[in-house]
Amino acid sequence: MTKKKNDFVKEITPMEEDFPRWYTDVILKNELVDYSPVKGFMVIRPYGYALWEKIQEYADARFKETGHKNMYFPLLIPESLLNKEKEHVEGFAPEVAWVTHGGSEKLGERLCVRPTSETIICQMYSKWLNSYRELPYLYNQWCSVVRWEKSTRPFLRTSEFLWQEGHTLHETAEEAQEETLQMLNIYKELAEELLAMPVVIGQKSESEKFAGAASTYTMEALMHDGQALQAGTSHNLGQHFTKAFEIKFQGRDGKEHNPYHTSWGISTRLIGGLIMVHGDNRGLVLPPRIAPVQVVIIPIAQKKPGVLEKADELYEKLKDKGIRVEVDDNPKESPGWKFNQYEMKGYPIRVEMGPRDIENNQAIIVRRDTLEKEVISLENFDSSTAEKLEEMQADMLKKALKHREDNTHIMEDYEEYKNKPEIRKGFAKAMWCGCAECEAKLKEDTGATIRCIPFEQEELSDKCHFCGKEAKHMVYIARAY
Amino acid sequence: MTKKKNDFVKEITPMEEDFPRWYTDVILKNELVDYSPVKGFMVIRPYGYALWEKIQEYADARFKETGHKNMYFPLLIPESLLNKEKEHVEGFAPEVAWVTHGGSEKLGERLCVRPTSETIICQMYSKWLNSYRELPYLYNQWCSVVRWEKSTRPFLRTSEFLWQEGHTLHETAEEAQEETLQMLNIYKELAEELLAMPVVIGQKSESEKFAGAASTYTMEALMHDGQALQAGTSHNLGQHFTKAFEIKFQGRDGKEHNPYHTSWGISTRLIGGLIMVHGDNRGLVLPPRIAPVQVVIIPIAQKKPGVLEKADELYEKLKDKGIRVEVDDNPKESPGWKFNQYEMKGYPIRVEMGPRDIENNQAIIVRRDTLEKEVISLENFDSSTAEKLEEMQADMLKKALKHREDNTHIMEDYEEYKNKPEIRKGFAKAMWCGCAECEAKLKEDTGATIRCIPFEQEELSDKCHFCGKEAKHMVYIARAY
Repeated sequence: MTKKKNDFVKEITPMEEDFPRWYTDVILKNELVDYSPVKGFMVIRPYGYALWEKIQEYADARFKETGHKNMYFPLLIPESLLNKEKEHVEGFAPEVAWVTHGGSEKLGERLCVRPTSETIICQMYSKWLNSYRELPYLYNQWCSVVRWEKSTRPFLRTSEFLWQEGHTLHETAEEAQEETLQMLNIYKELAEELLAMPVVIGQKSESEKFAGAASTYTMEALMHDGQALQAGTSHNLGQHFTKAFEIKFQGRDGKEHNPYHTSWGISTRLIGGLIMVHGDNRGLVLPPRIAPVQVVIIPIAQKKPGVLEKADELYEKLKDKGIRVEVDDNPKESPGWKFNQYEMKGYPIRVEMGPRDIENNQAIIVRRDTLEKEVISLENFDSSTAEKLEEMQADMLKKALKHREDNTHIMEDYEEYKNKPEIRKGFAKAMWCGCAECEAKLKEDTGATIRCIPFEQEELSDKCHFCGKEAKHMVYIARAY
Repeated sequence: MTKKKNDFVKEITPMEEDFPRWYTDVILKNELVDYSPVKGFMVIRPYGYALWEKIQEYADARFKETGHKNMYFPLLIPESLLNKEKEHVEGFAPEVAWVTHGGSEKLGERLCVRPTSETIICQMYSKWLNSYRELPYLYNQWCSVVRWEKSTRPFLRTSEFLWQEGHTLHETAEEAQEETLQMLNIYKELAEELLAMPVVIGQKSESEKFAGAASTYTMEALMHDGQALQAGTSHNLGQHFTKAFEIKFQGRDGKEHNPYHTSWGISTRLIGGLIMVHGDNRGLVLPPRIAPVQVVIIPIAQKKPGVLEKADELYEKLKDKGIRVEVDDNPKESPGWKFNQYEMKGYPIRVEMGPRDIENNQAIIVRRDTLEKEVISLENFDSSTAEKLEEMQADMLKKALKHREDNTHIMEDYEEYKNKPEIRKGFAKAMWCGCAECEAKLKEDTGATIRCIPFEQEELSDKCHFCGKEAKHMVYIARAY
């Protein structure tokens, strides 16, 4: 290998030493992304994009299964449309990019690059919708959005990101609420089944909800460093936008009504979560279901007769079984160098196999999450490998769940929480009276925020941990990305 | 059905009467697209987007089969990067949208919304590439691009469109040329196999090539009205960009070299072609392979016992066979109304089946392209339907090819061509000396342009049809979209 011009990352910084640096090292060394010439905008490189493709594939299938179809709306939104819903414009106007010229002409009205598409979609829905018979509208869009951020970090917060945004209309408030929760549950399943990333689901507080929403629901995951990540949101928008945009339909009663409205989204941010939930000091650790390559076969002493042939035979067997597999028979690199590379890249399983293994009709399998070696018979090698992959997927979820449980504390006393940064790592469960003042105080005192009011409530106490008044909810609290 | 607020299209205008109007009627009545509040930008509605998904699915599989991977590059490109390749900026600067403000701040440098991504991709490639061992670079991106157009038409020419852009680097000029032609051939196969749209492939003249290319190759299709459509292009960019962007690698000889470069793209424009090649006065006609729904089953006298059950049974049978099928058992509409609807929507096959058919263990099949009715036994109904779909796919390509052949004339005399508009419909084959003056004269005299220098050359004469000097190439000429 020639030395890379941009190979400034010599080693991965241990996460205990400097977690943000560890994160950056892992994504740059693995060529998941690179910084672009435009500040805050990232390039998603093939290995990173392949992860996004797997997320898209899973999510798109689930959306279609539940009756949703894809559409595409324009990238640019007239300023006057953005201004139609008051809370929405206040939330988004400060962070949009403005197009002022088309070719050499100055535009009559500024156009913003979509930060999200509620406004332009509502404008079109108001043109299309007539009768309750046409409801529900169940549509989604895959696209990129731009939000001008001051401080950015690849995948987690960038001025442009890839996402999907679902936008639905319903006849009744109940149906809209059902849809909002259905989509949140699909996100939860995606996080847990595909990414092996456990999430807490619940409702956002007033101050943390989406600009223009009646209520926002979220899934929150816990990262290795004890910070939370908002990993996906689903909004019940009520009639806020449908009234502002005069979306109307003739109801069963023959009268005009405004429909009820939802929107929901997940983004490339999930990839940041994936890295920070499973990675270790050797690099990435990918759950098998999302790994672009699940198994790499590394022949040992590959010049010896029969080794490469056997490696190819196993390759074919695994491929026929539907496993995403590669053989690395590059004669210029040593097996040891290859082991390190694929550990860094997080390939779930590596198979080592040399002449003696072949003699004994066996191979050595190393799982990336445990790094334990196991000797496996070549009899039914495809089935045993497939089983290992499934086991690994399940074990990774369990391990991440255990990490979250070990790092979820029940708040005893707010003063103690405030004064001991070490117990502020991870989630804290606390009781809250529901008022904005307590929420603001918590943030000011500790940097932590109320991540959500979880659906699974426990009554830890009948008093608010912050003000001592009557408690309304149990909440999850954490510092967050 | 309630009357639609925007149901201003009462009937489809016959194409013989007004072809552009026919086109607009077909796409609006079928809800393929709608106009957005931003002039020149379209909304792609679910039925239209489903066609794009099929194109993506086919193309993406072919790209991956040939070793390409997907990436994602930023939407916004700094003006200074756009300026680096002289011909490129001259070609694109007049039609880009400029972002001048991010949030409330004026930017230090204007950013253009990508009209195409050569410049930003080359900037990153120059950072990444080191050695010939890393070549070829075989990457692609699916995204939207913006080109500020004065006059637009849905799918055919819009200020924003969806596309893919491949961007590859190669060690040698020969490899780059091979790649350029390989991708053009994949596009041709996509057009013919998936869209049943025959294309002529060849090289663009100097004046028609991509801004910054060494040579541009194209596929050109002939529409119903006798106009040509440039349906996809593949560019050999030589070292124009790699020199301007100082992309270098250490070669086998230990010295520094600039790699050779290609780019290639197809877009939502293909959907416009699909409509104008196959549509008729009843509406869309979709080739089975791209049709989102291939078969619709319409039960007749569906209240009679056993009819709906049989319809469902057939539905399951066809579905198991991998056919995309629907049953329309809406009791509020008559079969006749349904026939019209599905003919307008271009569903390839409709199945009609009533009590008497069931008694006789048969159903009636109507192919959308021929509108001929055929009685088919319910024995092996799935296989016979699958066969019909394949036959239809092949017949549609043949029919389109015949239309093109019937509308391809050999130029006898340029004066005659110039003076008789009726023979200017369709393609004309002519001999050309290769000079820009003759090309400009043709355009000025007739509005027609040289579409390409086809790979399949014929020597119609040894003299240029326009100036009488020595001919160099046979060319295809047409008025074009």
